[in-house]
Amino acid sequence: MDKLVYIEGVILTPEKIISNRRGDIYHAIKIYSKGYQGFGEVYFSFITKNSIKAWKKHIRMTLNLVVPVGKIKFVLFDDRIGSTTYGSTEELSLGPDNYCRLTIPHGIWYGFQGLDSDINLLCNVANMVHDDAECQSMELSNHIIPYSW
Amino acid sequence: MDKLVYIEGVILTPEKIISNRRGDIYHAIKIYSKGYQGFGEVYFSFITKNSIKAWKKHIRMTLNLVVPVGKIKFVLFDDRIGSTTYGSTEELSLGPDNYCRLTIPHGIWYGFQGLDSDINLLCNVANMVHDDAECQSMELSNHIIPYSW
Repeated sequence: MDKLVYIEGVILTPEKIISNRRGDIYHAIKIYSKGYQGFGEVYFSFITKNSIKAWKKHIRMTLNLVVPVGKIKFVLFDDRIGSTTYGSTEELSLGPDNYCRLTIPHGIWYGFQGLDSDINLLCNVANMVHDDAECQSMELSNHIIPYSW
Repeated sequence: MDKLVYIEGVILTPEKIISNRRGDIYHAIKIYSKGYQGFGEVYFSFITKNSIKAWKKHIRMTLNLVVPVGKIKFVLFDDRIGSTTYGSTEELSLGPDNYCRLTIPHGIWYGFQGLDSDINLLCNVANMVHDDAECQSMELSNHIIPYSW
């Protein structure tokens, strides 16, 4: 059931939506899910239409991302020496219409953009508590990541 | 900082909202948060306006609930023999305007109702994976819980 995306170590896992006339249930992640790397923190990130939050990379954090509301485009870039997908970029969009969990291992550059005009909501189930010391960032426009937003 | 609600063992914890012009960050729960009881599963429950999901009780699951979108009313009922708040009901509403995490220990009857006309979204960070065997339910109208929705 797991759809492997192109970049090495990144995992895209369809998650279940259980229809209910009073309001649906959306699964996000279980302790035995593929890509689960332990618990540290859950937080939400809203992203308004066309806004971009990029680029970020974690030294230790594995992200498990779901988008229960709206539509968000994710772009990934692999600059890990020795990776089979070194130098690759990849993009994909998540939301209720493509309801999957995106596992981003540490070491991958990523960014995301809101696509819906109303609410775009991302939930990250991270394997560690946020720590500035393990977060890297890069300007949106740079000479390293070959992607134009 | 923790606001204790009336029913014994229930905890209401204000969580941080970090403003950002591209979209805010909402904290939900960290591994060292009060009320965190271990990780089992994260899932979302949508609830349409005026719809009610009630009554439910867990034998083993502790719920940690946040409402990042909309407004949801929660009603709790304590029928635990020996509890200092035995027989008590309590209600409270959560959403971005009252952004708190509600910890409901096992053994408490609870239900919730969507209040906003648009999206009402609840996120549960549960200490165990869903298990029908430890879930109890009761009809909305019953002779046990003295609450009228």
